[in-house]
Amino acid sequence: MRIDCLQYANWSEKIFRQMREGGVDAVHVTIAYHENFRETVLNFEKWNRWFEQYPDLIMKGQWASDIDKARETGRTAIFFGFQNPSPIEDDIGLVEIVHTLGARFMQLTYNNQSLLATGCYESEDTGITRMGKQVIKEMNRVGLVVDMSHSADRSTIEAAEFSERPIAITHANTYEWSPALRNKRDAVVRAVTENGGMLGFSLYPHHLKDKSDCTLESFCEMIARAADQYGTEHLGIGSDLCQDQPDSIVEWMRVGRWSKEIDYGEGSATAPGFPPMPQWFEDNRHFGNIETGLRATGLSNDEVAGIMGGNWYKFFADNFGPKSQT
Amino acid sequence: MRIDCLQYANWSEKIFRQMREGGVDAVHVTIAYHENFRETVLNFEKWNRWFEQYPDLIMKGQWASDIDKARETGRTAIFFGFQNPSPIEDDIGLVEIVHTLGARFMQLTYNNQSLLATGCYESEDTGITRMGKQVIKEMNRVGLVVDMSHSADRSTIEAAEFSERPIAITHANTYEWSPALRNKRDAVVRAVTENGGMLGFSLYPHHLKDKSDCTLESFCEMIARAADQYGTEHLGIGSDLCQDQPDSIVEWMRVGRWSKEIDYGEGSATAPGFPPMPQWFEDNRHFGNIETGLRATGLSNDEVAGIMGGNWYKFFADNFGPKSQT
Repeated sequence: MRIDCLQYANWSEKIFRQMREGGVDAVHVTIAYHENFRETVLNFEKWNRWFEQYPDLIMKGQWASDIDKARETGRTAIFFGFQNPSPIEDDIGLVEIVHTLGARFMQLTYNNQSLLATGCYESEDTGITRMGKQVIKEMNRVGLVVDMSHSADRSTIEAAEFSERPIAITHANTYEWSPALRNKRDAVVRAVTENGGMLGFSLYPHHLKDKSDCTLESFCEMIARAADQYGTEHLGIGSDLCQDQPDSIVEWMRVGRWSKEIDYGEGSATAPGFPPMPQWFEDNRHFGNIETGLRATGLSNDEVAGIMGGNWYKFFADNFGPKSQT
Repeated sequence: MRIDCLQYANWSEKIFRQMREGGVDAVHVTIAYHENFRETVLNFEKWNRWFEQYPDLIMKGQWASDIDKARETGRTAIFFGFQNPSPIEDDIGLVEIVHTLGARFMQLTYNNQSLLATGCYESEDTGITRMGKQVIKEMNRVGLVVDMSHSADRSTIEAAEFSERPIAITHANTYEWSPALRNKRDAVVRAVTENGGMLGFSLYPHHLKDKSDCTLESFCEMIARAADQYGTEHLGIGSDLCQDQPDSIVEWMRVGRWSKEIDYGEGSATAPGFPPMPQWFEDNRHFGNIETGLRATGLSNDEVAGIMGGNWYKFFADNFGPKSQT
């Protein structure tokens, strides 16, 4: 079973076919970075059209059991998430509404301070806000997973501890392996995994040691080390694949409409666009390389199967509905 | 089994308890008259709160099987509908979105011309519009029922014929019994029922012969006559009960924000508010009176059971999901 817990591609039939070629059973796709509620609904609508247009390739994913259904019918189950809480605006009632529409992950912040918590690019991290605590409780109630991939350390640790259900960092690597601002320090990963949460490893070059030149061996060794530190069962993949996107998209991700000035985020003035992916992971057809690389580290077949998908499957099964139901 | 296929009360614990006292297993409640999409979502949110607050009295209804669940647990299943297509704005993608959120009926018009069809108060009825045809197809696809209670005759007949699935007039009576503008002429009822659709009989005094003074006998005789004309299996109740609403609400229903001038609709300058309900049907506890009244007309027990709920149950089972699923 292969599950990728984050992609934001420029979706097309080509990519859906590559998912099938790569044996990808489920993908968590981002459908909001800066969108408000109504704009996010337009993105749900866009996916509804794709489900109608490509019924043999993809299907809407709402529950872990949809992954079984996708496997039985040779399709990829698409699960929705937001990288920002902008879709719920200032309205806690929208948490249940977006969950009903199919959202299963929501980041409490995207780089900046939000109404709920502090993003990883702010200079001061004040932790979870008053509204943030109410929203985490509501997310726990309905089964919308707290994702802290783009949040600051204190906010992430507080979210892991305050949340009554496990949280996730869907796409990031370990800071000790590659000290990027978005990669996660030991105390952060520990707080998340000790509370039952998950870390999905990212293939986005800015998160990799030596960026686009990162080797498969180095990437897999990082995962094997994390398995020793935090337990294999808390680890998965969240590739952050942004396939076929123009560079204008990465600029929009970074500045949305919150700034009139350019912000290069993980890039720079000389390299503002998407960096090239490492040769061994260019698209959905390359998940087999990671699987092979992980086996070469000495991880057991069961451990590798867990990291490639089994661990996310179990996490989805436990966390996507009201607690009483799961 | 008792199903009421239209109410718009000023909801409260008192009314939910009266539903239980009256043995009402399911109610179709209106959650939009003039609201746009975002405002309608606020109304879904309001109901989510009531489902949380009164889990022993009410539950969200999405499928006919939820009525069985409600009966097993001694609750009333609440199904959502709109009396206007305003919630989908000019966006056909919202048809599937509102269905996912739980909407199961949508009127193509509320008295006035809409983007989709002509309302019953317009002087010219031009039938189903270009967008109206597209929206009916989409409603057919997802399982959102076309309701023509407040539509003009030609539009209603065209909708019944164009729709590939049965449509409904959830709340109105026969024009021959009481020639109110909102009551339905023989050709209209015939077009709806001959295409498998349903007529729900209304207790709103403006739709009754002699209004608030209408007798139970007269009301039930009208139903018995309709059973002869159109077949019992196409008949149900849609009480149009607007319990505990202030008169300001009926004014808002009539003028929304489309007019700066007052419009009295079925009322008049001297009687602008809600007329008193007939003594034998004041609230949800009085459904037994209708049942008794129907039996007295000579309809069989099975026929009466169908009209009180069984016919709507079957209609819900056939029409609330994609056709392949049902």
